[in-house]
Amino acid sequence: MIFENVLLVNPTEKEFVCDIEIENGTIINIKKKDASWKYILFPGFVDTHTHGYMGIDCMSASSKDFENWASLLEKEGVTYLFPTTVSASKTSIEKVLEEFNKAKHPSLSGIHLEGPFVNKEKAGAQNKEFITSFSQEKLPKNLDNVKIITAAPEIEGFEKLYSISSSKKIKISIGHSDAKFSDYSFWYRKGINRITHLPNALRPLHHREVGAVGAAVLLGFYVELIVDGIHLSPEFVKFVYKTIGPSRIILITDSISATGLGDGKYDLYGLEVYVKNNVARLSNGNLAGSTLTFSNAVKNFAKITGCSLHELSLVTSYNALKNLGNEIKIQPGERTKFVLVDQDLNIIKTII
Amino acid sequence: MIFENVLLVNPTEKEFVCDIEIENGTIINIKKKDASWKYILFPGFVDTHTHGYMGIDCMSASSKDFENWASLLEKEGVTYLFPTTVSASKTSIEKVLEEFNKAKHPSLSGIHLEGPFVNKEKAGAQNKEFITSFSQEKLPKNLDNVKIITAAPEIEGFEKLYSISSSKKIKISIGHSDAKFSDYSFWYRKGINRITHLPNALRPLHHREVGAVGAAVLLGFYVELIVDGIHLSPEFVKFVYKTIGPSRIILITDSISATGLGDGKYDLYGLEVYVKNNVARLSNGNLAGSTLTFSNAVKNFAKITGCSLHELSLVTSYNALKNLGNEIKIQPGERTKFVLVDQDLNIIKTII
Repeated sequence: MIFENVLLVNPTEKEFVCDIEIENGTIINIKKKDASWKYILFPGFVDTHTHGYMGIDCMSASSKDFENWASLLEKEGVTYLFPTTVSASKTSIEKVLEEFNKAKHPSLSGIHLEGPFVNKEKAGAQNKEFITSFSQEKLPKNLDNVKIITAAPEIEGFEKLYSISSSKKIKISIGHSDAKFSDYSFWYRKGINRITHLPNALRPLHHREVGAVGAAVLLGFYVELIVDGIHLSPEFVKFVYKTIGPSRIILITDSISATGLGDGKYDLYGLEVYVKNNVARLSNGNLAGSTLTFSNAVKNFAKITGCSLHELSLVTSYNALKNLGNEIKIQPGERTKFVLVDQDLNIIKTII
Repeated sequence: MIFENVLLVNPTEKEFVCDIEIENGTIINIKKKDASWKYILFPGFVDTHTHGYMGIDCMSASSKDFENWASLLEKEGVTYLFPTTVSASKTSIEKVLEEFNKAKHPSLSGIHLEGPFVNKEKAGAQNKEFITSFSQEKLPKNLDNVKIITAAPEIEGFEKLYSISSSKKIKISIGHSDAKFSDYSFWYRKGINRITHLPNALRPLHHREVGAVGAAVLLGFYVELIVDGIHLSPEFVKFVYKTIGPSRIILITDSISATGLGDGKYDLYGLEVYVKNNVARLSNGNLAGSTLTFSNAVKNFAKITGCSLHELSLVTSYNALKNLGNEIKIQPGERTKFVLVDQDLNIIKTII
């Protein structure tokens, strides 16, 4: 298929107008032009942290559900999907992995395990009953498709977890953690460079202990951000954009199965979640994931920060893949996924 | 007097080696050279926030004490001194102003009133008994030499205080305040651009209300910093250096009369202060000013941030004067104060 006169946003250079020919997911030809444009072609969006969508819940999804989930997300522009578990029993997590491993859809890119090896004191909406220290026998089997594990470095056994994860090329992301700056600094030097939904469920910035935010600003961490207008104020998003910068921000939805279904009472692996005006909370008032869609995350971030299209391609796609060791290259011969949007960032077409 | 082969740190350009001739405080000649240098010539240091030194307390100082204070600080490189009151009765503050107005020393540059128009909930080591809302009759008389008033925008009558201060060319600095980002934003647009000892006794950064730190990072505020290794961790200082930057940092000592006298029990306008290992605290554990000397503040900042000499001249001198409406110009014909230091930033000579 050929897109004529589109503004191609290439994360590794400035955007330009071109005709681009794509055949079965492979770029055949890119012809730069001096022409006006109507639509924008972004690299496909990446959601590395999402628990569910439209009634599908990662914890109970069948392989068919995973496939449906990936298909449904095409209208959100998501072309790389990392369904995310919550703190749960080993058996439950193994069942999720088993179903995921059977599912087939080009967007299904791996599993993110959020917990259970996190800090109970920073549980947020993770079920404390299943939060635990780490030892080898607690690790689920069959981790081939696990790409990210959110864990807290202060828990017992973390060093072992990190060593096993590294050997399996699974990325550790620090999350649901009370880690101090010195912990971040120590583990950053060891190779950890990702923080889960900064600064939710993390140690706040204090002037005598700068915590997660200080570590993210001063060191080279990539940070997940939930830009739903609820988890973070617009000023905090601007603050991160200014101090950490668009090269280290990874937009995520952290969406739960209630996303797209409207207000009501839902279940989050044994915890009751009440969604009211699109805000998901536990009965104790804690935020319980979001009902954010990826396309809204993109619009929110663009509106709040006033960032360039190039920067938007970093936070929606390039950074997430780079953080996982894959660099997008937009050039003939490369297999690349795209999303076509209009000038208001509405999704027109997703090309997988 | 002539200084030969000194490295002159000029805040408005890059440093260079020169011979400089100064006569009665006026620069006669600057001859740039290509030569090696041993000493560094900085613009004289400015302390805009200090309550006392070596047993002299701003609240009880006679005019002679103010003069001695200024003389004593020559060995600290301080050439512009702004003795700072604490929250006190109107009569007490008027007495301070009366004594200050009689004192004569070229370093005595004005008074900083810290309180009493601040927020009781953010008293820190201010005596709550004297903290009060503002009304015109509470304003001390004879404010001619008052250059800065630290006040909290959320107190009753603040708008009136700001209007009176502006008409008298007195700078308002937001301090001991629970102001939110929206308050900072509102008053920044009205013309306030200074924050007192960030972020001590101010609203912390939270991801849904970014408070004083967020305002300082996102807006154009100048910020006072106490770099004594106690009020702020080194990481916080690095954080401010990176996110707010050397063009908006004003080093202060916030020193109390115990400074230079060693450990013991002291009085801070009716509050007992215990100094132990150079840390000054009230009996409730609150930090009660510092025992920091300016020369140590300079060394600490340089060591923590690794900043350039040029940047050091900004945070020690240029910014503080610019914030008060005076720009240092280092050129023949200009009256300029200097401090000569060695390569380890030890004070060799102060030229007033």
